[in-house]
Amino acid sequence: MPYAAAAPRAYPLRELARHAGCEIKGDSAVGIDRVCTLRDGASGGITFLANRKYARYLADTKASAVILRRADAAACPVSALVHDNPYACYAKVAQYLSRTATAVAAIDAAAVAHPTARIGADVTIGPCAVVEAGAKIGSGAVIGPGCVVGERAEVGARSRLHANVTIYQDCRIGTDAIVHAGAVIGADGFGLAREAGVWVKVPQLGRVIIGDHVEIGAGTTIDRGAIGDTVIGDGVKLDNQIQIGHNVVIGEHSALAGCVGVAGSAEIGKRCTIGGGAVVLGHLKLADDTHITAMSMVTKSITAAGAYSSGTLLQANAQWKKNALRHTRLDEMARRVNRLENTLRRIEQPSRRARQASRPQGDPQ
Amino acid sequence: MPYAAAAPRAYPLRELARHAGCEIKGDSAVGIDRVCTLRDGASGGITFLANRKYARYLADTKASAVILRRADAAACPVSALVHDNPYACYAKVAQYLSRTATAVAAIDAAAVAHPTARIGADVTIGPCAVVEAGAKIGSGAVIGPGCVVGERAEVGARSRLHANVTIYQDCRIGTDAIVHAGAVIGADGFGLAREAGVWVKVPQLGRVIIGDHVEIGAGTTIDRGAIGDTVIGDGVKLDNQIQIGHNVVIGEHSALAGCVGVAGSAEIGKRCTIGGGAVVLGHLKLADDTHITAMSMVTKSITAAGAYSSGTLLQANAQWKKNALRHTRLDEMARRVNRLENTLRRIEQPSRRARQASRPQGDPQ
Amino acid sequence: MPYAAAAPRAYPLRELARHAGCEIKGDSAVGIDRVCTLRDGASGGITFLANRKYARYLADTKASAVILRRADAAACPVSALVHDNPYACYAKVAQYLSRTATAVAAIDAAAVAHPTARIGADVTIGPCAVVEAGAKIGSGAVIGPGCVVGERAEVGARSRLHANVTIYQDCRIGTDAIVHAGAVIGADGFGLAREAGVWVKVPQLGRVIIGDHVEIGAGTTIDRGAIGDTVIGDGVKLDNQIQIGHNVVIGEHSALAGCVGVAGSAEIGKRCTIGGGAVVLGHLKLADDTHITAMSMVTKSITAAGAYSSGTLLQANAQWKKNALRHTRLDEMARRVNRLENTLRRIEQPSRRARQASRPQGDPQ
Repeated sequence: MPYAAAAPRAYPLRELARHAGCEIKGDSAVGIDRVCTLRDGASGGITFLANRKYARYLADTKASAVILRRADAAACPVSALVHDNPYACYAKVAQYLSRTATAVAAIDAAAVAHPTARIGADVTIGPCAVVEAGAKIGSGAVIGPGCVVGERAEVGARSRLHANVTIYQDCRIGTDAIVHAGAVIGADGFGLAREAGVWVKVPQLGRVIIGDHVEIGAGTTIDRGAIGDTVIGDGVKLDNQIQIGHNVVIGEHSALAGCVGVAGSAEIGKRCTIGGGAVVLGHLKLADDTHITAMSMVTKSITAAGAYSSGTLLQANAQWKKNALRHTRLDEMARRVNRLENTLRRIEQPSRRARQASRPQGDPQ
Repeated sequence: MPYAAAAPRAYPLRELARHAGCEIKGDSAVGIDRVCTLRDGASGGITFLANRKYARYLADTKASAVILRRADAAACPVSALVHDNPYACYAKVAQYLSRTATAVAAIDAAAVAHPTARIGADVTIGPCAVVEAGAKIGSGAVIGPGCVVGERAEVGARSRLHANVTIYQDCRIGTDAIVHAGAVIGADGFGLAREAGVWVKVPQLGRVIIGDHVEIGAGTTIDRGAIGDTVIGDGVKLDNQIQIGHNVVIGEHSALAGCVGVAGSAEIGKRCTIGGGAVVLGHLKLADDTHITAMSMVTKSITAAGAYSSGTLLQANAQWKKNALRHTRLDEMARRVNRLENTLRRIEQPSRRARQASRPQGDPQ
Repeated sequence: MPYAAAAPRAYPLRELARHAGCEIKGDSAVGIDRVCTLRDGASGGITFLANRKYARYLADTKASAVILRRADAAACPVSALVHDNPYACYAKVAQYLSRTATAVAAIDAAAVAHPTARIGADVTIGPCAVVEAGAKIGSGAVIGPGCVVGERAEVGARSRLHANVTIYQDCRIGTDAIVHAGAVIGADGFGLAREAGVWVKVPQLGRVIIGDHVEIGAGTTIDRGAIGDTVIGDGVKLDNQIQIGHNVVIGEHSALAGCVGVAGSAEIGKRCTIGGGAVVLGHLKLADDTHITAMSMVTKSITAAGAYSSGTLLQANAQWKKNALRHTRLDEMARRVNRLENTLRRIEQPSRRARQASRPQGDPQ
């Protein structure tokens, strides 16, 4: 039975239904204390059916309750929560179950907070975390062990930094944010001027400004602006090991998957999604609701919402070698196809003329 | 002479031969205190000849001993250790030479271990490391400076976490593991449900379970499961800056090179290798003994062992621009080639019929 | 008005001109206390005009001074600094303005420095940083909070490690370097020998040797050599999340953009540039002044300076799917084009021979 951390206690199904705003079929008093998968189930477990291809597991589920669409309710052998968007509903129920008993907020004795730092009410600061001069930590925020919050940086209310996060000076994180371990917010952008074959560092004097309800993955790095700020909109979700260059702007509610790179001054619209390992070149602009598939290279601005891709498909290595070699001569091949068409046209011309000549006058083509 | 850290003392060659299980040719008493390259050598140094293309350096090596195959022994001007697998044999000899005098195990005065953490015998915990409530550190383990081991997490016996590693709550690392600096084990997977244009966080309630003898590179991130666990098998080797999504399973003795990304719920078989920068899309399954070349995108499940690739070859930029543009019209080119073939067939048809007509009856084709 | 951190006080323009070595047009006494953009400007702000496409903003700039080429000076409505390389000149002026009032150098009470570490004059060590036995910190260096400098490692004079950087044992960083948060210098290279389906670790006994005036981005990892060293030349600039394998050599003044991966033993020449997300395969050699565009895979050594690329261009997803499928049969298509050419040649042959036969003797082709 797949592991899932159990809730501190069981909740009657009706309490979860009320929280997530959905209708109950079956026993509203059944006790739920964990999430589980539809396929395996668990006594006291709640799960969901969102993707029709898993519907075959419904009949035999050992879960105590299933969140599903009305159309699937009749086939459910156990209690059900009915909702149009079962996955979003499951997310809310799981959030409810996984609320941790709030630890008593405290600044650990081994934390180091500068006397000029402004620490809000109910803030937790872990051991070996460092809060520098003039920094501001909003009420209810959690600063994990080993984090460093730089001078004058701000972390909004209820935001949580997991362990070993670094926030550089003057950067701002909004409220209700989650920043995972090892993330770095506000390092210098890659600004270099060339002079006589040597690179001269261009000071990076802007900031990173992050909105509310943003989540930032482990090891993700977001550079500060050169002049002006790098801006991450409300509700943006960044997966692990993403690199965001200086002066990038990401619109509200966009989501970027792991290992994406966004080069300096690119502007990504609202509600965009970018697949894992994709790269957006610098200074480009992506329209709202643009979707980039995994490992694509965005080589031009996108003005119309929609899905875009680049890259090649996986092949057996032996076949790939041949194809890849041909690809290096693709332009030559295209020219040869042009020539072939021209030659054939020349060859066909006489006979076509002949056919047209022999056709009676007035014959419709 | 290329640098290599010297052993604390010299060992007679016979002691190394005994450790690695190989036969000696020449002076078994020669003292060895370091490794070296075949090309440069070093007095007191031991090296190896595994790849035939370096055989030309054997005659002039200044090494004191060479590990090589029987066939190369006659040409060796110095002492030799004979073994069928010289590189694996070298690995063991180098391990033997580089054993460090075990520092006295101790919990540094500047480390912070929760009173409920269970710390085994002979454990070393570096300064500014944090071991949270209920965590368990196996005997002989080393927790580097600045590491954070989360609540109830477990680190197996003799495992070593280098500096600034983060292990989230409830995750488990087996015995004899090595985790390099900055790695993050157990951050939340990228689970999001969409509701009315806004992302709702799906709590990640599983764990990361890592087997024995696993090595994890610097900056690598492995996300915890959503429901159920992310599982890394025994003997798996992960290079630097790899991203492993939630609920991924990696089979025993697979090796992934730097910057690989594996999306959620992918299953990688046993003894697979994945080249640097490759991406495996989510929910795919790779058969045992699958080999993916560098920077490939795995876009489908693989059911047969073998080597697979995608991507394009390096070209001069001017030529690449032309080819890349042609690539965006490849489907059109393919249709034109189809039309050319059809036209030619039509043109050829009459003459072929004519030839066939003039051919004597009974003529074998 | 785009944000830029203000200088601690205003400087007369002539002081900046003297520092950057350029000529003044207009009021040499105007006070400058910040940088700004040409488009927006700021009272007391200095900016630059380097790229001609921004020249249209010059007439209306609200900046107090602009750094520009002589040809643009006449059109400048405010004071100007005239220089052949305005961007490099701007970089120097911005450096001058952003010099921070040097904090009093001090080893924080919460830092942990081993008694055998050699700490130079005027060194700053932040809280929760760890300097291990035998390490050497040059005069004026800054070791950020949470950093770990390993045994016998060296950090040169005036170099700055931002927060949570890890330097492994025996590695060396030159003078005037900047290392951003979360970077890891000197983790083990990915050295593995295979024996009976199991990986045997090959000890990594070399070091990382980094020159002077190097900048290393956040989350970047540079592995130590197996035997011999990994070497980063003077003036090299590495962006964020770059992975450098063991025994790599990078020549002086090369610059690598974010997310680049360089596999083991590759040698990159001097003054090279590598675009974001590109991968260089192992053991390859790149000539001085080689330029690799973003997301390319370097699959062969490069002997001639110039620009090189691989990859494909972004397309609408529907079109890409068709093209990508055709790409997997590119070799077959090439063979079909060959056959078409042969067939056409055969068809054309008779008529061409006929034309040639009917052509008068001595007719020039």
